[in-house]
Amino acid sequence: MQDVDLIITGSKALLLDEKNTCLNNAAVAVNGDKIIAVDDSKKILKQFEAKKIIVAGDSLIMPSFVNCHTHAAMTCFRGIADDLELMDWLNNYIFPAEAKNVNKELAYWGSLLGAAEMIKSGTTTFCDMYIFEDETARAAKEAGIRCLVGEVLFDFPSPNFKTPEEGVAYTKMLIEKWQDDPLVNIMIEPHALYTCSQPLLADVKKLSEEFNVPIGLHLLENAAEKKQLEEKFGKGAVSFLKDIGYLNEQLVAFHCVHFTEEDMKMFADYGCKVSHNPASNMKLASGVAPVPEMIKAGVTVGLGTDGCASNNNLDMIKEMGTTAKLHKVARLDPTVMDAQTVVRMATIEGAKTLGMEKKIGSLESGKKADIIVIGLNEPHLTPLYCEYSHLVYATSGADVDTVVINGKVVMENRKLLTINEQDVMQKVRDIATKVKKSLQK
Amino acid sequence: MQDVDLIITGSKALLLDEKNTCLNNAAVAVNGDKIIAVDDSKKILKQFEAKKIIVAGDSLIMPSFVNCHTHAAMTCFRGIADDLELMDWLNNYIFPAEAKNVNKELAYWGSLLGAAEMIKSGTTTFCDMYIFEDETARAAKEAGIRCLVGEVLFDFPSPNFKTPEEGVAYTKMLIEKWQDDPLVNIMIEPHALYTCSQPLLADVKKLSEEFNVPIGLHLLENAAEKKQLEEKFGKGAVSFLKDIGYLNEQLVAFHCVHFTEEDMKMFADYGCKVSHNPASNMKLASGVAPVPEMIKAGVTVGLGTDGCASNNNLDMIKEMGTTAKLHKVARLDPTVMDAQTVVRMATIEGAKTLGMEKKIGSLESGKKADIIVIGLNEPHLTPLYCEYSHLVYATSGADVDTVVINGKVVMENRKLLTINEQDVMQKVRDIATKVKKSLQK
Repeated sequence: MQDVDLIITGSKALLLDEKNTCLNNAAVAVNGDKIIAVDDSKKILKQFEAKKIIVAGDSLIMPSFVNCHTHAAMTCFRGIADDLELMDWLNNYIFPAEAKNVNKELAYWGSLLGAAEMIKSGTTTFCDMYIFEDETARAAKEAGIRCLVGEVLFDFPSPNFKTPEEGVAYTKMLIEKWQDDPLVNIMIEPHALYTCSQPLLADVKKLSEEFNVPIGLHLLENAAEKKQLEEKFGKGAVSFLKDIGYLNEQLVAFHCVHFTEEDMKMFADYGCKVSHNPASNMKLASGVAPVPEMIKAGVTVGLGTDGCASNNNLDMIKEMGTTAKLHKVARLDPTVMDAQTVVRMATIEGAKTLGMEKKIGSLESGKKADIIVIGLNEPHLTPLYCEYSHLVYATSGADVDTVVINGKVVMENRKLLTINEQDVMQKVRDIATKVKKSLQK
Repeated sequence: MQDVDLIITGSKALLLDEKNTCLNNAAVAVNGDKIIAVDDSKKILKQFEAKKIIVAGDSLIMPSFVNCHTHAAMTCFRGIADDLELMDWLNNYIFPAEAKNVNKELAYWGSLLGAAEMIKSGTTTFCDMYIFEDETARAAKEAGIRCLVGEVLFDFPSPNFKTPEEGVAYTKMLIEKWQDDPLVNIMIEPHALYTCSQPLLADVKKLSEEFNVPIGLHLLENAAEKKQLEEKFGKGAVSFLKDIGYLNEQLVAFHCVHFTEEDMKMFADYGCKVSHNPASNMKLASGVAPVPEMIKAGVTVGLGTDGCASNNNLDMIKEMGTTAKLHKVARLDPTVMDAQTVVRMATIEGAKTLGMEKKIGSLESGKKADIIVIGLNEPHLTPLYCEYSHLVYATSGADVDTVVINGKVVMENRKLLTINEQDVMQKVRDIATKVKKSLQK
C-alpha cells in the first residue's frame, strides 16, 4: 500500500484526456499537489492508503473548469447597468463607476467574492485582466484558487497608474513578485488595440520576451472596433499584430467575434489562442464569434465568462450551455458544437489556451490535482444517458459539491473551506453602497 | 388580528403587478389557497396572526414561474440524443424510443420527475402536451403542482389511441374528469398542422367550443415546416388557421419561430397567444423567433422550456437568461428584451398566455397563492443593484428555497414535501435502462 493524502471516489469520472476516457466506479488518488493515479475505485483503494477519503457516491469526478477571460473584481458592479447601448453603458455607468470607486480595497474584496463564486461553480483557474492585479493575486492566493492575472494597460491614466510606463513597471513588479508561486501566474495585458499606442505595445512585447510571459488582449470584440482599427492601420487588426511581432504562442486574444478566415488562418499558423465569451457577446450584442470555424482552422479556443458587468455571473457551466446552443442557432445547424467539444473547451482546451495544459485541464497522473465532484443524484440530472450532454445542457453551478485545487480541498459538500463567504459578501455590499451613492451625484 | 394560514417574510418582494411594484422588508399573508395581503412586513405581522410563518431572511419573494410549453414525461429521454440533425434525431432516436417505451408508467413517473424538477427551480404551473396525459394530471395532482395538460392528437396512431377519434374522445374524458379540480386544467392539443388533418382540426374546434377549453399546438417551429405548409395550403399557416376559425383568445401556439409581420398582426388582432421556447429553438437550430416584434405588435408571449429531449432541462430561470441574451445578439441591439420584460414573460405574461391571469402570475390580494422565495445571500447574487437583472442574468434554479402552490408549501429550504425524490428518480432510472436496451436492438 502506498500512502497518499487524498482519495476521491465517485460513480463516474470524465478524464478529458486525449481519448476522452469515461470510467465507471472511479477514484482519483492525490498526493501533495499532484494526481498520482486515476482508475477503477477498487484498484485505487487496494493500491493506496489515504489520509482523507471523499466518498462522493452517485457523482461525476472531472477536471475543474478554466475560465479564460474575466475581470473578477467587477463582481462589485454586478447588475449595475444592463440592457443598454454599449457606449451608454460604458460612458455613463461602467467608466464613471470605475473612475470613482476602483481602489485596492475594491480590487481585493471584489476578487475574493469572484473567487468564491468561481469555486462554488467548479472553476479553479481564471485568467484575469483588471486594475490593482496584485490585490487580485493576493485574493486568489488566500482563496487557494489558481490564476493567471495581468494589470490592464492603456495609454490613459488608470486608478493604479498615471502613465503607460508606470503600468509596465507595475506589471514587471508583479512578474518578479509572483514568479515562484504555485497558484499565481502573471501575464501582460494591454487592454486592446484601440486603447494602446504602438510604443506601449512594443514595451509589452519586450517585457513578454524578457520574462517569457504570455500576453492577453481584447481583440475584435465588435463590428465598430473592427472598422475603426482598419481605418487606423490601413489593414486588419490581426495583420497589424503580425507586423508588430505579436503573433506567437504567447498570445491569448479575448472575444475575436469579428474574425475573418484569414485572421483564423494566421492565428492557427502562429499558434495564437482565443478565449470565447459567448454570454458577454450576446448580452452586449457584439455578435457571434466564428468558433466552429476557428476550431476547424486549427485555433485553440477556450471559454471565458468575461466580467460581472457584462454577463453577470462567473459560472462556466452556464457558459458551456450558451456556447453549445448559440452556435447551433447562429448557423441553423444542430450538429455544430457538440457537448463533448464544449466540455473540452471548458477544461483541457482552456488549459491549452492559457499555456497550462501540462499542469491542468485533465485528470491524468502527474498533473496538478485540480478536480471537481458533481452530484448526479438530482431530479434535473435523472436519468443519465450521456455525461457530456448533462454537463452542457442540464447541470447547474450549484451541482458542484466538492472542489480540489493544487491538491487542497477548498470546498466540500458546498462549504467553502478557504473563504469566509459572509464576511466577503458584507464587504462587497458596503462597497456597493458607496458605488451607488457615487453614481447618484 | 386576523387569522391566516401562512405568512412569508423576506427582505424584498417583486409583485409583478401592473406597476411592477418592488417592496423592501415585505411579507405575504396567505389563507386557504389565496393571497390575502402583500405589504410591508411590519404591517402584515401587526394585522395577521398565522398558523405558520416562514421567515425567509435575505430573500426575494415573487410569483412563481409559468412554463407555457413542455412535455414533462420526456424527462425519461433527457440526453438520449443531442447535437443531431432534426430528422436524424426524430426518426432514429425520439420516435423509436417513444414507440417502444411510452406507456402509462413512463408517463406517470416521467411527469412526476418533471414536477420535482420544476418545483425545485420555481415553476408552479406548466402547460403540457404528451401521451397518456391523464397520468401527467395524476402526477401533477400528487405533486401539488398546477397544470394545463392536453393529450397530443394527430392522424396516425399514438401509444394511447389508434384513431384520431379515439384521441378526441380521450380528451373529452379528461375535460369531464378534471373539470372541477383546483390544480389540474385540461386543454386540447392537436400536435401541429403538418400532422393533423382538417377533420381532426374541426373536431378539436368543436370540442373547444363545447367546453370552452383552450387549444394548444406547435406552429411554424422551423423553416422546412413553413415551406411545407405553404405548399400544402397555398397560403401561410396563420392564414389557414384564420380560415378554419382557429384564431381566437383560446389559441396558444408553441414556438412561432418563423412568423411574418402579417402573422403577428393576425395573432394580435384575434388575441391568440404564443409560447416562446428559446433554448429548444437554439438546440434544434430552428431559428430565432421574432419575440420583440411580437410584443411590439401586441401579442401576448409567455416562456416555455419545451421537453427534456430538446432542452434538456425544465428550468425557467435558465430560459429567462437565454431569452434576454438571444434576442440582443440576434438583432445586434442590447436594448431589446430588457430584464424586467423577461421576468414578466416568465410570470404574469405566461399566466395571460394560458388564460390564467386572473388566478396566478402576480402577487396580489385575491389571487391564488403561487409563490416562490429566492435566497439572496449567495456570492453569485452579491451585491444587489437590480432584482430583475439578478433573476435573468445571475440566478440559478438552485437559488429557489421555498415554493408555495395554491396556498400549500410544497418545498421548504429546498426539501420537497409532496414528492419522494429518491423513489421517483429510481423509477425513472429503471425506465431508462429499458429505453437504452430498446434502442440497441
